[in-house]
Amino acid sequence: MPHHISRQSCQRWDAQDPLASVRQEFELPTDLVYLDGNSLGAMPRRARERVENTLALEWGRQLIRSWNGACWFTKPRSLGDRIGGLLGAAPGQTVITDSTSVNLYKAIVAAARLRPGRHTILVERQAFPTDIYIATGAARAVPDTRIRLIDDSSELEQELTKDVAAVVLGHVDFRTGTLLDMPALTGMIHAAGALAIWDLCHSAGALPVVLDASTVDIAVGCTYKYLNGGPGSPAFIYVAHRHLDHIEQPLTGWNGHATPFSFSTEYQPHQGIDRLRVGTPAVLSMVALEGALDVWDQVEIDEIRAKSLRMTRMFAELLVDSGLDMLTPTQEHLRGSQISLTHPDAYAIIRALIDRGVIGDFREPDVLRFGFAPSYLRYVDVYDAATQLLDVLRTRSWNLPEYTERLLVT
Amino acid sequence: MPHHISRQSCQRWDAQDPLASVRQEFELPTDLVYLDGNSLGAMPRRARERVENTLALEWGRQLIRSWNGACWFTKPRSLGDRIGGLLGAAPGQTVITDSTSVNLYKAIVAAARLRPGRHTILVERQAFPTDIYIATGAARAVPDTRIRLIDDSSELEQELTKDVAAVVLGHVDFRTGTLLDMPALTGMIHAAGALAIWDLCHSAGALPVVLDASTVDIAVGCTYKYLNGGPGSPAFIYVAHRHLDHIEQPLTGWNGHATPFSFSTEYQPHQGIDRLRVGTPAVLSMVALEGALDVWDQVEIDEIRAKSLRMTRMFAELLVDSGLDMLTPTQEHLRGSQISLTHPDAYAIIRALIDRGVIGDFREPDVLRFGFAPSYLRYVDVYDAATQLLDVLRTRSWNLPEYTERLLVT
Repeated sequence: MPHHISRQSCQRWDAQDPLASVRQEFELPTDLVYLDGNSLGAMPRRARERVENTLALEWGRQLIRSWNGACWFTKPRSLGDRIGGLLGAAPGQTVITDSTSVNLYKAIVAAARLRPGRHTILVERQAFPTDIYIATGAARAVPDTRIRLIDDSSELEQELTKDVAAVVLGHVDFRTGTLLDMPALTGMIHAAGALAIWDLCHSAGALPVVLDASTVDIAVGCTYKYLNGGPGSPAFIYVAHRHLDHIEQPLTGWNGHATPFSFSTEYQPHQGIDRLRVGTPAVLSMVALEGALDVWDQVEIDEIRAKSLRMTRMFAELLVDSGLDMLTPTQEHLRGSQISLTHPDAYAIIRALIDRGVIGDFREPDVLRFGFAPSYLRYVDVYDAATQLLDVLRTRSWNLPEYTERLLVT
Repeated sequence: MPHHISRQSCQRWDAQDPLASVRQEFELPTDLVYLDGNSLGAMPRRARERVENTLALEWGRQLIRSWNGACWFTKPRSLGDRIGGLLGAAPGQTVITDSTSVNLYKAIVAAARLRPGRHTILVERQAFPTDIYIATGAARAVPDTRIRLIDDSSELEQELTKDVAAVVLGHVDFRTGTLLDMPALTGMIHAAGALAIWDLCHSAGALPVVLDASTVDIAVGCTYKYLNGGPGSPAFIYVAHRHLDHIEQPLTGWNGHATPFSFSTEYQPHQGIDRLRVGTPAVLSMVALEGALDVWDQVEIDEIRAKSLRMTRMFAELLVDSGLDMLTPTQEHLRGSQISLTHPDAYAIIRALIDRGVIGDFREPDVLRFGFAPSYLRYVDVYDAATQLLDVLRTRSWNLPEYTERLLVT
C-alpha cells in the first residue's frame, strides 16, 4: 500500500465528506462493497417506498383512475424534466421512455431524416455494442444510408466528410472509462454539417453534463446505473428545442400523438418532446425511478464529481503496484467515474473478489471494471476493495475451477 | 329489469361458480365494481408479493448478481413461454419485451422483409389507432412500402391483392368488442400469399386463442389488461417457428444478440425468439407480470370464456330497455369479453357511474365500454353495475357540469 493512504485517513475523509449523509438514503447490504453502480445502481429507500405505494394504493386501490389521479400519464415528461435538470437541459427537451437501444434507434433515424442529402452515420468501433447494432438497424430504415465505424474520436476530424449525417458518441466509454470532450466534439461535428448524438449511459448521474451549453442535438441514456432507477428502469431521450418542431422519429406510437385520447386515425405528432414517446409506459419501473430522483434533490453534481475523482484516483494509487494494467486514463478531464484494469485472468479474479464481498464486474476480453457511485460509497469502501483485490492477487486465490466457469450474464 | 334475472339468482351463480375462489387471488377494493379490466387488470396478490420480494432481496440485497441469481436475464423468455401457453403457442415462440407498439413495429417491418416483392400493408380503419400510426411508421422504414386502410375484415377478400405483404388485424376490436375468426382470416390471408399479424391486446387472457393451430405468422399484445400484469407491464411478441430462423427485425439491440455478453461488434441475431428482444428488460414491471401469471396456473381458459359469455349476455339483457344502443355483437362467436353501448352523453354518464363506484370507461366518440374479467368478477357485480347504470340513466344524474369536463386520460 502506498504509505500516504491508510484506512484511518479514509475514515477521516468520510467524516468530513459533505455527501456522507446521502448514503442513508440507500438500502445497502452491510457485508458488501459495491463497485458496480455503473451497471446497476443501489436501491434508494424512496424508490422502494414509491413502488410499494404504487402497488398498494395507485394500482391496488385506485386502479385505472391513477392514469389521471396519480399522474401516470404525464410522468414520462415530469421525470424527464427532472433528469434534464441533472444534464444541463432546460425543461421540455427530455422524456422518459423505452430502453436506451430503442431510443437510439429513434435518434439515429430522426437525425438521418434531418440531413436528407447525407447518408453516413459514424459510430465508434469501441462503443457499447448495442450502439453499433442499433445504428446498423436504424441505417437500414433510411434510404441509402449506412454506418461507418471509426476507431475512436481522434479520427473524427478526418472522418467528418460531407456525407456524414450524424455521429454517435459515448460520453464515457463503458469499457475503459474514458471521458470525451462533449462541447468540443459537438462543435467539430456541427462545423462539418452533421448532427451529434450522445450516449450518456456512463455519465448521467456520474459527472456534470451540459447538454444545452454543448449544443448537443440528441442524447440518450439509461437510468439504472448512476441514477439508481432500478433494474431495467426506463431510459431517457433528449432532443434540443431547435429540432423538436420538425423531428420525425420512426416509432410513431399513440403516446407520442398530439391528442392520444382523441383516437384519430391520423398520426399528428405532439408539439414537444412527448413525440418521442411510443406506447404505454412501464409504470412500476418508472415510479422506482421517481423515488430514486428524490436523492438528487439533496446533492450537487459538482460534489459528486469531486468525490468520484478522489475515489478513482485513490483506487488507482492503491493498485499501482498490483501488477494489473490500468486502462482508464489517469488525467482527470479524460476520466469518468470508473477504473478499469486488465489481467489475462480478469474473469476469475472478479469472481474471487465477489466471493469476498467486493462487487465489480468483468468485460470482455480481459477487463476488471470498478464503478464509483459517490452518493453511497465511502472512502473506506474504496480502501477495503483495493485491499481485498491486492490480497486475491497476492494469494492467487482466483485460481479455482469454479471461478473460470462463465455465468450467463458477466 | 328482465324478470328472469334477480340479484338472488346472481348470488346463486356465484356460489356455483368454479372460478369463484380465484377472486381471492386479487386485492380488490370492496367498494368498487371494476369493469375496466380490459384497460388495466386488477392487482393479483402474487404480483405485489413478487415485486416486493424483488425490491427487498433481488435488487436491495443481491443487486447486480440477480441478473444470474434471480434469472432476470432469461425471464423475458420464460414468461414468454408461460403466456404462449395461454395463447396456444408451443414453447420458444413468445417473448416478453417492450410495448405493444414497439413490437408491432418490429412485426410489420419484419413481415414486409419476408415478402420483398410486395409493398402494401393492410390495416383496419377501426383498429386501435396506434396500430395505424405504427404501421405507417414501419412502412416508411421499408423501401417503397405503404399502408392501405380497409373498413373492416369483410373487405379482406377483395383487398388481398398481389401487392399485399401483410395484414394487421385486431382479434377483438377495442371499441366494439367484435371478435374476429382468427383461423379463417389467417387462412384467407395465406391463400393470397400474405402474412397475418394479429393484435391480441383485447383477447389474451379473455378467451381461447390458438396461435399455432391458426397458423398465425406474428402476434403482439399487452399484458396489463386481462393478464393483470400491472400498469405498463411489458408486452409480448409471438413469431411462428417457421419464420424464426430468417426473420429480420429492425430493432437490433444487444439483448437480441446470439451472445450478448461477448460484446462483439458484429450483430449476430439469436437463433430463436430472443432475437425479438432489444434492450434491458424493465425488471420490476416484468416480475409483477410473473406474479400475475401464477393466477393462470389454476384456471382453465375455457372456464374463463364460459363465464365471460354468461356475464356479457347477462349485462346486455339487463340493459335491454335502457335506451342505450348496443355496439357489441349479440352472437357469441363474434363477441369478446366486453359490452360497448352508445349514448350522446356517454362521457358524462361514465363519470357519473364511476362516482357511484362502478368503473367502466369511455371511448370516442360516444361509447360506454365495460370489460368483464371473469377471474375476479362476480355475477352480483354485473347485476349491481347494471342497476347503477339504469339508475344513472333514469335519474339523469350525469347531467352535471363536473361530469362533462374532460380529464387527460379518458
